[in-house]
Amino acid sequence: MENPFTDEYFMKKALQEAEMAFEKDEIPVGALIVIDNKVIARGHNLTEMLNDVTAHAEMQAITAAANFLGGKYLTGCTLYVTLEPCQMCAGALYWSQISKIVFGASDEHRGFEKMGTQLHPKTTVVRGVLANEASDLMKRFFARKRK
Amino acid sequence: MENPFTDEYFMKKALQEAEMAFEKDEIPVGALIVIDNKVIARGHNLTEMLNDVTAHAEMQAITAAANFLGGKYLTGCTLYVTLEPCQMCAGALYWSQISKIVFGASDEHRGFEKMGTQLHPKTTVVRGVLANEASDLMKRFFARKRK
Repeated sequence: MENPFTDEYFMKKALQEAEMAFEKDEIPVGALIVIDNKVIARGHNLTEMLNDVTAHAEMQAITAAANFLGGKYLTGCTLYVTLEPCQMCAGALYWSQISKIVFGASDEHRGFEKMGTQLHPKTTVVRGVLANEASDLMKRFFARKRK
Repeated sequence: MENPFTDEYFMKKALQEAEMAFEKDEIPVGALIVIDNKVIARGHNLTEMLNDVTAHAEMQAITAAANFLGGKYLTGCTLYVTLEPCQMCAGALYWSQISKIVFGASDEHRGFEKMGTQLHPKTTVVRGVLANEASDLMKRFFARKRK
């Protein structure tokens, strides 16, 4: 039997989180943290609602996952996020020692890869999973904003 | 009359915050955010107590300052922090568009300057204010840990 718990499977759930941000008029980014095929944390961008630049989807998911696990290290966990993390979120992921990061759309301007932010040496990265879906959502958001 | 509100004046208060972290057996880093010579936010490292890698002194101060101001941008504000910010905190400061960062001791290994994290172009940086005091406190902390 085929494993249903693919990266696409979890990224679809992260996209649902991003849709929730979209509906709140927040830049639509969603994140999920998974361990052993189980979702232990979710988050979506809330920087406008909370008036807080630190309220990115990933930051909330990191805090929630550590809370669930009862420890601050996310070894064995995978983060799914619809947009490439920024310097801040990549810096938090560095401290968390998370095992794997899967992101959707690249952020050519403010993504951690362009900015040169270092991840933990134990962390692996998978890029471009459902990237078109994530990027279409961003485009719809900014098109609505311009109206 | 001499202006009492020097960088040293506020850094002493940030060091008091770092002492509070020390007393809680947290890596002793303290931070303060100031606007128009008024302290609007304080924080000290709570990563152990909160089991949360994102609970750095600066992150808490950024969130608290934005909450006080009712807006997420920290234009016109100065951050005082006893240790050079890491990638995560510098990344958050980038988003906040804070006007000035004053730090005490440099972090040769994980500081944002070594790591190459970008700040906002509007942000100025002052280094080494009461650096010896901040670094002595760190040394006392790690000496106690080794016992």
